[in-house]
Amino acid sequence: MSQLNAVLKDLDDNIDDAVERLFGLLRIQSISTDSAYADSCKSAADWLVDDLNSIGFDANRHDTPGQPMVLGKQNINDQKPHLLFYGHYDVQPVDPLDLWDAPPFEPALQDTAAGKVIRARGAADDKGQLMTFIEACRAWKKVTGELPVGVTVFFEGEEESGSPSLIPFMQEYQSQLTADMALVCDTGMWNATTPAISTMLRGMVGEQFTITGPSLDLHSGMYGGPAMNPIRVLNKLLAGMHDDTGRITLPGFYDGVHEVPAEQKQQWNTLAEDNKDFLKNVGLSDAAGEEGYSVLEQIWSRPTFDVNGIWGGYTGEGFKTVLPSQASAKISFRLVGDQDPDKIQAAFHHYIESNLPADCSVEFHSKDASAAINMPIDAAAFSKAQKALTEEWNTDAVYAGCGGSIPVVGHIKSILNMDSLLVGFGLDDDAIHSPNEKYNLSSFHKGMRSWARILDALS
Amino acid sequence: MSQLNAVLKDLDDNIDDAVERLFGLLRIQSISTDSAYADSCKSAADWLVDDLNSIGFDANRHDTPGQPMVLGKQNINDQKPHLLFYGHYDVQPVDPLDLWDAPPFEPALQDTAAGKVIRARGAADDKGQLMTFIEACRAWKKVTGELPVGVTVFFEGEEESGSPSLIPFMQEYQSQLTADMALVCDTGMWNATTPAISTMLRGMVGEQFTITGPSLDLHSGMYGGPAMNPIRVLNKLLAGMHDDTGRITLPGFYDGVHEVPAEQKQQWNTLAEDNKDFLKNVGLSDAAGEEGYSVLEQIWSRPTFDVNGIWGGYTGEGFKTVLPSQASAKISFRLVGDQDPDKIQAAFHHYIESNLPADCSVEFHSKDASAAINMPIDAAAFSKAQKALTEEWNTDAVYAGCGGSIPVVGHIKSILNMDSLLVGFGLDDDAIHSPNEKYNLSSFHKGMRSWARILDALS
Repeated sequence: MSQLNAVLKDLDDNIDDAVERLFGLLRIQSISTDSAYADSCKSAADWLVDDLNSIGFDANRHDTPGQPMVLGKQNINDQKPHLLFYGHYDVQPVDPLDLWDAPPFEPALQDTAAGKVIRARGAADDKGQLMTFIEACRAWKKVTGELPVGVTVFFEGEEESGSPSLIPFMQEYQSQLTADMALVCDTGMWNATTPAISTMLRGMVGEQFTITGPSLDLHSGMYGGPAMNPIRVLNKLLAGMHDDTGRITLPGFYDGVHEVPAEQKQQWNTLAEDNKDFLKNVGLSDAAGEEGYSVLEQIWSRPTFDVNGIWGGYTGEGFKTVLPSQASAKISFRLVGDQDPDKIQAAFHHYIESNLPADCSVEFHSKDASAAINMPIDAAAFSKAQKALTEEWNTDAVYAGCGGSIPVVGHIKSILNMDSLLVGFGLDDDAIHSPNEKYNLSSFHKGMRSWARILDALS
Repeated sequence: MSQLNAVLKDLDDNIDDAVERLFGLLRIQSISTDSAYADSCKSAADWLVDDLNSIGFDANRHDTPGQPMVLGKQNINDQKPHLLFYGHYDVQPVDPLDLWDAPPFEPALQDTAAGKVIRARGAADDKGQLMTFIEACRAWKKVTGELPVGVTVFFEGEEESGSPSLIPFMQEYQSQLTADMALVCDTGMWNATTPAISTMLRGMVGEQFTITGPSLDLHSGMYGGPAMNPIRVLNKLLAGMHDDTGRITLPGFYDGVHEVPAEQKQQWNTLAEDNKDFLKNVGLSDAAGEEGYSVLEQIWSRPTFDVNGIWGGYTGEGFKTVLPSQASAKISFRLVGDQDPDKIQAAFHHYIESNLPADCSVEFHSKDASAAINMPIDAAAFSKAQKALTEEWNTDAVYAGCGGSIPVVGHIKSILNMDSLLVGFGLDDDAIHSPNEKYNLSSFHKGMRSWARILDALS
């Protein structure tokens, strides 16, 4: 039996113990955005340090002004490639709690039509995913006495709350974090049977802004007509962001957006055929994005503008004929290709400011912006990982886009000058960030087997 | 000394007692929209019944499924004209409480640059106003032994919460309420020195509606692009309600809207000259309504569409890149002339429904609609009242429009077949419905003197 096969057998033989360990981590209520859970975040970091040290890592907790970081190292030498593995141990808040079928921090295996699932907050995002990698390392160490490559693990605890400590930490620990390549396990499969390597990530520009018209709330009987209503101004400005074909109207917005090569478009069209229910599953039938682009293109290769929140005036029960003083919105752009987030942010500010009626003012509150990322899929590591995944799943692993942003991948590029291999085993129905989050047991089990193979392939 | 002059002198001599009585009513927390204050509403009704009976009325509290009504009668016979006086004893909620300079239910006289004011919730809307009439009756009764006309007083306690019991009560008590003419004291002066009779009231159509797109909230990374965002749909629909000149785009909307006669326009232009700060006082400089119409025309004689509330998606602190399942708005039309509220409501529903993308649905929740009202200013009672007001204030009383709706005036017309003489002494800076509501002591004092004169003039 090859070393790899022995490692895979060990993972199969000990799956119950692995699930038990994951349950231990899932029981820790590491909600990073709520300061009431700061001690739980520290406990989760300590839990990981202890587990890493138990399998041969030299791991430590590093406190920050926010939640702690975990760094662990093993088998780092000149003979072996050195990989940096990133994950995050913090989780999203659990409200609305009454929509959960079971307590979110009491993990359990549940039988479903699609097989057994692990049900808990963080099961998929990201505790279950990061543990697939730790379990692969555990098995390699146990079966062969050492890891096939050098590994630095790096876990943060603020991914769900904007990662305020991440950039300063990565800058301070640059030399300790730099390796040959990064592995990031925070993405998904193409579907339940088809593994994927995410090679394109959309970037993001986010803004909250408030338009002020009259200096106080007015009665629409007394002032309705001549009084500027900031909700009307906001509606008009936001409605003007798209033309009738769904294109975004900001001048220069599409600078740096590249058309997808015909060959890749063809591959995506093939993928789309077994993805027909993607919109249907959420109650929709038509692709609402730019005309002339498929659903996959709209998510993976086209930029977007969306209003994520809007509010103004009276929103309680009943009616109040108020003309409000203010109206607000939270908006975000998803970016692709070489779009420049700073230029887009400036263009958006200019659009709002230059179209604002004289009697209105606007105040912006900007979120950190990030550019889109495109991985060098011609590099050998990508094809080796693709082959390893294909062998594990008996289905060709696909190079996929990813509609979301993973800011850490940008920081890994800009601060550490490394590319990232984005492999994950989440599924679209995992309900991450929602009630009843789950991670398929098969994702967990075959996920650890996949990492065992990738470590071998990259050694 | 004429009877009228003796009555006016009595009002002057006893102004302190009248203020004390008003304070007693203002201390009662009769917030009708909040069921926690139901007992207070009953107390306010009882307070009025007792006060009316003490000055010769035969007054009773009439309980309803909501807040009670008060009915009182005096001096009704075939020899005298019979007038119905309407007012309301309920008040608006007081939040945000922290913006009040003093507790809203502890009335006090305050010195201001514009003279003494009575500061309390309800001081102007409508307790102070209705007490001007009761004090006029009290003085007539005390000085002459009887009222110069027959009077039925009718006070409701649900004016600030949609008057759910009003129509059934007016239908049931139709014979008791019917008189020769109604007097309604719920409007304002033209300015602090110029009295006004309101002869045009805008009507109203109100709607709350919710647009549903996807069946659940989605992550904009996973779905942004192809997923229908109901906020975007809502923005576009609302933005489409006005054209670039501020006209409302609903087909047939302007049916029944009449241009103001040139003579009246000229009068309004004169009035407007000493009203230049109307918009400036609320932080605005330009009339934002239909192009080509003055501020007064836009408020008094032009219909409007406004969004009074809008909400959807994530509106808390920080960012959440959600594509919400739903977005909602509360809107209202102000109507003028002979616009048909039912047709406008239907046209609005049709506009929303016919422009809704296939993947969206809409649910409406309609508020009671009311048509605009135009009084017969050629009738003798109007010129008599105008003359009485002019004598009291030493300034020509004007026939004014009123941008707001007073639904009861519509019910008085449709159920009791009576016109209403709308006279009130409120001022634009009274902050009704807002923190620090006040009623000028001069409004209160000269208001009761005005009613004393009008009762004499109509006798």
